[in-house]
Amino acid sequence: MKMREFRLIEIASKIFKVKGENILVGAGQHDAAIVKIGEKNVVLTADNLHEKADFPKGMTAEEMGHMALAVNLSDLAACGANPLYFLHTITIRDGIDDEFFERILIGMEKLAKRYEIAIVGGDIDFGDELYISGFALGIADRIVTQSNAKIGDGVYLTGLLGKAQLSLEQLFSGMSRENIAYPKSLFTPEPRIFEGMEIAKHANSMTDISDSLAISLNLISEKSGVSIVLDENLIPLDHLTEYVSQDKALELFLYSGGDYELVYTSKKKSFGFKIGEVVEGKGVWLKKGDKFSRIEFKGYSHL
Amino acid sequence: MKMREFRLIEIASKIFKVKGENILVGAGQHDAAIVKIGEKNVVLTADNLHEKADFPKGMTAEEMGHMALAVNLSDLAACGANPLYFLHTITIRDGIDDEFFERILIGMEKLAKRYEIAIVGGDIDFGDELYISGFALGIADRIVTQSNAKIGDGVYLTGLLGKAQLSLEQLFSGMSRENIAYPKSLFTPEPRIFEGMEIAKHANSMTDISDSLAISLNLISEKSGVSIVLDENLIPLDHLTEYVSQDKALELFLYSGGDYELVYTSKKKSFGFKIGEVVEGKGVWLKKGDKFSRIEFKGYSHL
Repeated sequence: MKMREFRLIEIASKIFKVKGENILVGAGQHDAAIVKIGEKNVVLTADNLHEKADFPKGMTAEEMGHMALAVNLSDLAACGANPLYFLHTITIRDGIDDEFFERILIGMEKLAKRYEIAIVGGDIDFGDELYISGFALGIADRIVTQSNAKIGDGVYLTGLLGKAQLSLEQLFSGMSRENIAYPKSLFTPEPRIFEGMEIAKHANSMTDISDSLAISLNLISEKSGVSIVLDENLIPLDHLTEYVSQDKALELFLYSGGDYELVYTSKKKSFGFKIGEVVEGKGVWLKKGDKFSRIEFKGYSHL
Repeated sequence: MKMREFRLIEIASKIFKVKGENILVGAGQHDAAIVKIGEKNVVLTADNLHEKADFPKGMTAEEMGHMALAVNLSDLAACGANPLYFLHTITIRDGIDDEFFERILIGMEKLAKRYEIAIVGGDIDFGDELYISGFALGIADRIVTQSNAKIGDGVYLTGLLGKAQLSLEQLFSGMSRENIAYPKSLFTPEPRIFEGMEIAKHANSMTDISDSLAISLNLISEKSGVSIVLDENLIPLDHLTEYVSQDKALELFLYSGGDYELVYTSKKKSFGFKIGEVVEGKGVWLKKGDKFSRIEFKGYSHL
């Protein structure tokens, strides 16, 4: 499905060929669009979640509300934007009562408060499945996209990866949510808002990792016209090898999503740790001693 | 469902008690939120459509795309805003191929071009039903809401009502889409963007009619603390009585939705025709000779 999603995004980019001096970053070019309103760089993003695809079994109503806002905020974080406003559309299904609905909103509002975001609107309707779409608006001082990685940049990550998918697989294998390794990563990921705003002051490129590190780095590589080489020695896997084999841990780190960390390339580090370098050439590679293996454009969906 | 929707909006308004000097109009107060960004009044709205609830049988892919944008633009029109940007989230179901998807976007883009709107972003995923959520952003010079109708205002409508629902009922009764009375009202309603921008220069209150004239006027009446009296002699029904009885025609005009006209109150008329007056008191009333009958807060959903 991930490949089809990217093919459909291609189709959309061709139809919505946006131009105009006020459109700084358009559809499909980055995690979010950036437009000029007055003197401000306004960052706009939309994300859709629904029960069967995005809400793991056992997720509470508050966590669903949190998640719907968090995935949008992660897109703003990827642009280094200060988030200001949020709107949602919610489709209620049979079996969701007013109290459940209210707790979804409370989950949203709690996260919104933490970042001083105002939830200013929404639309409510009724259907066969619970859907929550979100739309977030923020302001960016300096514009950082996926398209400007420079040869010689270091590649940095704001946090550990693979935790959400590991936890999801544990849940699928029958563990209760109290016993899985990283419930917070799976149920209430924290968007890297403050980190994004700081990193945007100096980074040459940045994106968030919603699908997988492999997809994020391949996007930066393609759009910037550079190659990226990760050093296996720099990739921390202890948080995963505690639970799974070394090979499986590396796979989770590179190819799984849901952790909502940021990856950026820069001449210096402000947050996180280094995992590789930007070099001349094409593609994304993993270096192990003298050997290089290709990191393909792939990732697996959350559910 | 309409009543439950308004109850849930109430719940949302209590949780998202937005404040702050930059929030001019918040969640649940009007058709859209209005926030200050720099010196601009930025109007934000979100609307969700899905197949089973919003797309009549026989609707083409292009019309679905048109509709998803049109309902959002109608909210902006209700605020007199100049629409600038649009983002969508689309859930694709089995059976919707790339070409169908592409035609949805082409329908969107055609309408967007007409109003010089840039479609700058979107999100695509997969599920059991086709969903299209939209988020629109516009700029308003003067702020007009549902809350400022003045005693002595005339009540004006930008166009005829009941056409979409009449056409839908004809479709349900087995007529083909070539033979129904007003296919354009049902399949490709035109948001009253230019009219809204002109009306906003002088109107005291305005809203669009997505659900029903009865709901729109009751919202203006409640929020403005005034009564509204419609004069039956001023209500044009010929476009409906050609097909249905006088009583049914009046019911369609007052209580059905989907025509996306604007209703406004003002000391003067710029577009449309007069249907009544704003007076002291409470509630919305229909005057027939000396008799007054209450126009209740009700409307019927499109499908």
